[in-house]
Amino acid sequence: METTRIFLDQDEIPRRWYNVAADLPEPLDPPLGPDDKPIGPDALAAIFPASLIEQEMSTDRWIDIPEPVLEKMYLWRPSALGRAVHLERALGTPARIYFKYEGVSPTGSHKSNTATAQAYYNAQAGLKRLTTETGAGQWGSALALACHQFGLECTVYMVRCSYQQKPFRKVMMQIWGAECISSPSDRTNSGRKILAEQPDTSGSLGIAISEAVEDAATHDDANYSLGSVLNHVMLHQTVIGLEAKAAFAKIGVQPDVLIGCAGGGSNFAGLVFPFIPDKLAGRDLRIIAVEPWACPSLTQGRYEYDFGDVVGLTPRLKMYTLGHAFIPPAIHAGGLRYHGMAPLVSKLANLGLIEAQAKHQVGCFEAAMQFAKTEGIIAAPESSHAIRAAIDVALECKATGEPKNILFNLSGHGHFDMTAYQAYLAGELKDIENAVIGV
Amino acid sequence: METTRIFLDQDEIPRRWYNVAADLPEPLDPPLGPDDKPIGPDALAAIFPASLIEQEMSTDRWIDIPEPVLEKMYLWRPSALGRAVHLERALGTPARIYFKYEGVSPTGSHKSNTATAQAYYNAQAGLKRLTTETGAGQWGSALALACHQFGLECTVYMVRCSYQQKPFRKVMMQIWGAECISSPSDRTNSGRKILAEQPDTSGSLGIAISEAVEDAATHDDANYSLGSVLNHVMLHQTVIGLEAKAAFAKIGVQPDVLIGCAGGGSNFAGLVFPFIPDKLAGRDLRIIAVEPWACPSLTQGRYEYDFGDVVGLTPRLKMYTLGHAFIPPAIHAGGLRYHGMAPLVSKLANLGLIEAQAKHQVGCFEAAMQFAKTEGIIAAPESSHAIRAAIDVALECKATGEPKNILFNLSGHGHFDMTAYQAYLAGELKDIENAVIGV
Repeated sequence: METTRIFLDQDEIPRRWYNVAADLPEPLDPPLGPDDKPIGPDALAAIFPASLIEQEMSTDRWIDIPEPVLEKMYLWRPSALGRAVHLERALGTPARIYFKYEGVSPTGSHKSNTATAQAYYNAQAGLKRLTTETGAGQWGSALALACHQFGLECTVYMVRCSYQQKPFRKVMMQIWGAECISSPSDRTNSGRKILAEQPDTSGSLGIAISEAVEDAATHDDANYSLGSVLNHVMLHQTVIGLEAKAAFAKIGVQPDVLIGCAGGGSNFAGLVFPFIPDKLAGRDLRIIAVEPWACPSLTQGRYEYDFGDVVGLTPRLKMYTLGHAFIPPAIHAGGLRYHGMAPLVSKLANLGLIEAQAKHQVGCFEAAMQFAKTEGIIAAPESSHAIRAAIDVALECKATGEPKNILFNLSGHGHFDMTAYQAYLAGELKDIENAVIGV
Repeated sequence: METTRIFLDQDEIPRRWYNVAADLPEPLDPPLGPDDKPIGPDALAAIFPASLIEQEMSTDRWIDIPEPVLEKMYLWRPSALGRAVHLERALGTPARIYFKYEGVSPTGSHKSNTATAQAYYNAQAGLKRLTTETGAGQWGSALALACHQFGLECTVYMVRCSYQQKPFRKVMMQIWGAECISSPSDRTNSGRKILAEQPDTSGSLGIAISEAVEDAATHDDANYSLGSVLNHVMLHQTVIGLEAKAAFAKIGVQPDVLIGCAGGGSNFAGLVFPFIPDKLAGRDLRIIAVEPWACPSLTQGRYEYDFGDVVGLTPRLKMYTLGHAFIPPAIHAGGLRYHGMAPLVSKLANLGLIEAQAKHQVGCFEAAMQFAKTEGIIAAPESSHAIRAAIDVALECKATGEPKNILFNLSGHGHFDMTAYQAYLAGELKDIENAVIGV
């Protein structure tokens, strides 16, 4: 019988994060301030602690994970490396399909990996409260738990339509003591302005970011926390790929294809960055970022400087972007509805070290259904994009007869996304043909 | 840093189930038919395959797990043995609190352990369809997945109030291709009779069992499947305790106290039965079954023969029972709302080998909240009873200074029970003082 779960012991899990900035063939373009000049650390000090700003700018290859962060991550790490033998058989592919399952965290996704670290560093810096935004609620839940663990208060601005449609994510945040506010709200100038102009708006991530940043910038004891995009977030997620490498080493296997879904880019980065040195050293390794057709920053965006939020409160980052005013269609993969792509992921794409694919929603749900029926796990709509791509590559292998080792990141479970599956089963899901016309 | 998750490799997990019937100090009382005489295997043949009837009556100590069942269980087994160090610290107890987390199965609870086996044996016997009942939906989901895996159709009669209140469990069953019907229904004589008498009934597990049994008994190609109570179900769940023993052996620890919540008794049995030989051999081992105050079969029921369902279609079993007509109050732990206790568990209680405690709902949610805040995991309302008891024992240890090793079964997650947590957080949960007056 095939082994289908490879477990590491806790003393085998990585104790350092890997920083891909150390190995980039050319340096990352710096973030720009309002004067079009590179910002220094001071420009971020109003909303981030010095330790995270240092990580954001660091080019050290390895950064130690503090003991208290490791200890909290031990609540769910290591996650198993799974092998989807039942899916392989159903496809009739000679490929072996591996997956790293991050849905085992208490909050159901990879987001807890960085939430834990960010809460720790902010608590160390003497902050009392963190603010953030959330769309589908995975990130807000993750930060809620992490803040509770390190004694911080947590204020989550949740996109209004999600706040109304996903009350259980709100309950989850409340279990861990966080305050969850429908955005736009009357708490901030940004929110009040939008409410005055568009009282019936369904909200957006860009608006919620503006509110959370303003809240943090205008309160001395509060900082802001972002769940993706920034360099230090990518860094914290590398435990995923490092664990995967250790598990592969244990069974003497090397992956040939790496796949992750990509919205802001953090679960993708977490899986693939630790493999970039292998690729740079000449290993034949295909790396695929999968984004939704409805929000295709890598495949249809421009590589240029843009704001991270709608209002324009953040520094500008060099990234593939659909424009900071772009509001993606309301696909179910709420966590992938972001106009830009992490600068580190964008740089690797621009250098040709990774490739990108855009997938339609219905096909992704078909893939997720096939995965649920063969492997049992009901995936998050975001993760369904990675499953779609993994199945497509496995079917290519079937056509060519190549027994490739495919690894994808199953970034989260879909237990709080059952309305999406309900809509799929009812035949109500539609694909959007031309989301970005005019961008 | 303390190790907080002990993993077995897949080649270390048990390949045999343990049958406690082999080690009982006195034999189990046989099930009785309508003529008050012990039934033979034939009496069960209309709804169960011969292989399961054989297991039901077996006194062999070890029974091999068929390879195809193991292979499906590999989708989530082994489950880690966790240690709740953060909870220990919050309590300030010298006790060590271990837990076996069964919420890692794709269906979110231990129920998949027996669902897989039952679907396999029925498929082997040439059946085309399985029928069952479900309350909260954990069991229905588990059987839905298992039936899909072995090519069987699945018909689930879901208690009407749950069908309406928990639409996401229904979606989950539909993902795996099961038909989920609100009970009472017009599909069966049992259902039609109750609908005619009480058109506005909220339904009950006893009614749903009557419908599922009737459906199976009146269709040649269909069998019935029960998620708890019966001997073969307890048998299939012993993988939990066997894995726990193997994990403890790996770290050189012996548990002093074993705890499981008990409705029909299967997750409790699965955890503790493999430890019964140790207790019989003289080891000082305290074993506690925790039931809801609102449905206290072990602590307030009578040890006598009773039916398994409301209508009286099943053989009568010797068990602690509140009477087969007893309808428990609508507590959130729907999986514990059963009038009787498994005959094997009842026998061990009657022999004094295990003890029982009844816990109030609010106190159980308080314990679950403390667990979620310290260990992250949001437990099922059923499992919260085990957490409550584990915390109570740990606090006793604090008072006495004894560093006992406590192991409880965390039988499932609460991702589909967030309305219960919502009610708790809103202060809307009430305890019932005298659920069984007049029994």
